Amino acid sequence: MSNEEEIRIREDELSAGVPADIEVQHPADAAETIEGLDIAEQVKFIKQLPIRDAADSIAEMEGRDQIELFKNLNRGLGARIVEQMSPDDATDLLEGLDEELRHALLNRVAAEERAELKTLLTFDPDTAGGVMNTEVVILDQDLNVDQAIAKIREEVEDKEIPYYAYLTDKKDRLVGVVSLRDILLAKRGAVLKELVKTQSLITAGYNMDKEEVAHLIARYNLLAVPVVDFGNRLLGVVTVDDVIDIIHEEASEDMQAMVGAGADETTDSPWLYSVRMRLPWLIINVLFSSVSAWVVHLYEGNIAEMAVLAVLMPLVANQAGNTGQQALAVMIRQMAMERFDRKRAWLAVLRELRIGLVNGVIISVLVFGVAFAITGKIPLASVLAVALGVDMLLGAFAGAAIPLLLKELGRDPAQASSIFLTTITDSMGFFFLLGLAGLILLV
Amino acid sequence: MSNEEEIRIREDELSAGVPADIEVQHPADAAETIEGLDIAEQVKFIKQLPIRDAADSIAEMEGRDQIELFKNLNRGLGARIVEQMSPDDATDLLEGLDEELRHALLNRVAAEERAELKTLLTFDPDTAGGVMNTEVVILDQDLNVDQAIAKIREEVEDKEIPYYAYLTDKKDRLVGVVSLRDILLAKRGAVLKELVKTQSLITAGYNMDKEEVAHLIARYNLLAVPVVDFGNRLLGVVTVDDVIDIIHEEASEDMQAMVGAGADETTDSPWLYSVRMRLPWLIINVLFSSVSAWVVHLYEGNIAEMAVLAVLMPLVANQAGNTGQQALAVMIRQMAMERFDRKRAWLAVLRELRIGLVNGVIISVLVFGVAFAITGKIPLASVLAVALGVDMLLGAFAGAAIPLLLKELGRDPAQASSIFLTTITDSMGFFFLLGLAGLILLV
Repeated sequence: MSNEEEIRIREDELSAGVPADIEVQHPADAAETIEGLDIAEQVKFIKQLPIRDAADSIAEMEGRDQIELFKNLNRGLGARIVEQMSPDDATDLLEGLDEELRHALLNRVAAEERAELKTLLTFDPDTAGGVMNTEVVILDQDLNVDQAIAKIREEVEDKEIPYYAYLTDKKDRLVGVVSLRDILLAKRGAVLKELVKTQSLITAGYNMDKEEVAHLIARYNLLAVPVVDFGNRLLGVVTVDDVIDIIHEEASEDMQAMVGAGADETTDSPWLYSVRMRLPWLIINVLFSSVSAWVVHLYEGNIAEMAVLAVLMPLVANQAGNTGQQALAVMIRQMAMERFDRKRAWLAVLRELRIGLVNGVIISVLVFGVAFAITGKIPLASVLAVALGVDMLLGAFAGAAIPLLLKELGRDPAQASSIFLTTITDSMGFFFLLGLAGLILLV
Repeated sequence: MSNEEEIRIREDELSAGVPADIEVQHPADAAETIEGLDIAEQVKFIKQLPIRDAADSIAEMEGRDQIELFKNLNRGLGARIVEQMSPDDATDLLEGLDEELRHALLNRVAAEERAELKTLLTFDPDTAGGVMNTEVVILDQDLNVDQAIAKIREEVEDKEIPYYAYLTDKKDRLVGVVSLRDILLAKRGAVLKELVKTQSLITAGYNMDKEEVAHLIARYNLLAVPVVDFGNRLLGVVTVDDVIDIIHEEASEDMQAMVGAGADETTDSPWLYSVRMRLPWLIINVLFSSVSAWVVHLYEGNIAEMAVLAVLMPLVANQAGNTGQQALAVMIRQMAMERFDRKRAWLAVLRELRIGLVNGVIISVLVFGVAFAITGKIPLASVLAVALGVDMLLGAFAGAAIPLLLKELGRDPAQASSIFLTTITDSMGFFFLLGLAGLILLV
């Protein structure tokens, strides 16, 4: 229980009147400490922290734990903490709360912050507007460098990541961005707009999907990207630390959605939440598996006559399924990392077909050899090898094509893709194996 | 072919003596343009670019394309480009080249850069030392703020991301870090070491795994983390843009390794490379599937007597496999995002067991109902339901435990985990179903 020890030390310090120093524990570490406490202790701990530290630590907690904590915190304190959080973190938190609590907190927040939070809450949380930070240093393009430095010195303490300052014209339209480095390097007296004359600015529309924003930042090695409305007015910025979270989330979503687990599940989710997320897909999986079972049922007579076919069934199904999943994994990762390009995507399907063909032929030849060596029966070994090879080729095609089809249908390319894939490779594998056996072995 | 058009325009500009402006095309876009050309055109294009632009663009290209290009570039030009690349990018490139070409290039690089690159090449590319950038602003802790600003102005053009400056003592030991913001905000005349007095500095040892470094930066929302040797001397920094690449790579590695595709495969990899990466795992999958086939073979008599068992086999295997993959996906993502904590990890296995138990019971009851409704046979429906439920529970356990076991054995937790899982759920599913059927239905 080293966590609890740390807290006790900290509580002692606090109760001894030692001013809390945010350097004592990084907010990310404090958040973990808090999450390890039971809810009554959490409330007690938060109450003893300076509001600013409480806000910083809570911002680093998991969404689910934040919600639980705020349900148990008195609303006045809650509102003061919300005021101190950076607006994007506060918005994330408020979005998770139920209607009633959200309103109660908002009504207690100071008018200026309330107006800002209400605006932020209107944006779709999965878009640039929903993840942006509104604490931006904005400078009039007509200021000179020295005026800019004075303005930054004055404003900077309030702003989260003032590595860039954004230049606007008289109508608040974004005209350029300068880094603190640019300002430091510029000649004394230079006018800001001169610094950005040849700049081709990368911006995100407020309704751009947050994963697209992440791609922009990753592709161009940016620390932040400005978010603008239709009139090119600056609304805020998405910063690279938020992008790291988006990329992590996206990878989890893809991997988990593929097999029908909840996109946002972690090992810390309440286990009943996981049950609820996964059960529908398991039921769908039963229904889909029934298709494969039904195919086998059609050939029950063949199996009764020749039970060895049942021995070979899992071999074919499994191998084709694995082949397909290799293609599926590579396609889904590609779609996660690059902007979608229809032509390149279908070329990638062709590529997978080629890989599936070669691997299918090699594995089929190997399996034919082993099957013949064991049974001494060329027809049986041939039926197995052909069913296996054809099903592997089909698996490669299906694995590559399923995420594209889902995408074309406007769905998440990963969602349940592994379940769809297995249904195809299982049912068609059984059809090839048992059907061929009926034609060749049982005449 | 809009890509080629763009280049032609650009080539015209160049040949017309228009000075190349890096703002014309971002290096990331230029890299994509170059990758779309055939190799002779690539060489021609690079030759016409100013060295600095060539270096920036090449740094953004995929490793495989970089290598191909350098094989075809004359070595004098190649060396001049390497000199202009940031040392971390240059090291990545050189690492991919064959011995002979690497030496030929290094010998043509200016002595100072050569010495630095040779040092960087000694670090394991998967560690902090292997991904760090050595272009760091280092300030003596005894300088005051104004001296610091003068020094930064002088140095900063050469350095890649000078948002932080690092303070060292007389023995080159790292004592703290200041951001440009800190310096801008500080009182005139303040001595740097005063600014970092209460700082608890986060550093990475040069041999820290690069994924650990990524965790540090993500956890503490850093823009860069300093890399130090055993004596706490500053060697370089890992910056957040490199971390984004590491996180992307890691996610691809996990998802692809799970099913036995190459960890670094993309849809742009040569297809024969993918064949070579996947084939060994497909062969292992055949061998493992043979275990399941062998289990069925043990019960061939039961199937001959009662072919409907073969109909039920895919249902049980598929459902338990899917249950296990849900657990597997959540565990692997957790291990990718958090530092490994043995106790928490095994608690997560318990959590998965609980989820598997509840989902297993619910699905079993449903399947029992449906099977009874269709066949009217309680014993048959019971055998199916019990085999299914038990195998799902086993799947949940195996899916959660396999990555932990792999980790404990010092292996990659994701590697082939899906293949191991399916072997267990298939073979044991068949064992439960056919074994129970033998005990209950066929007496």
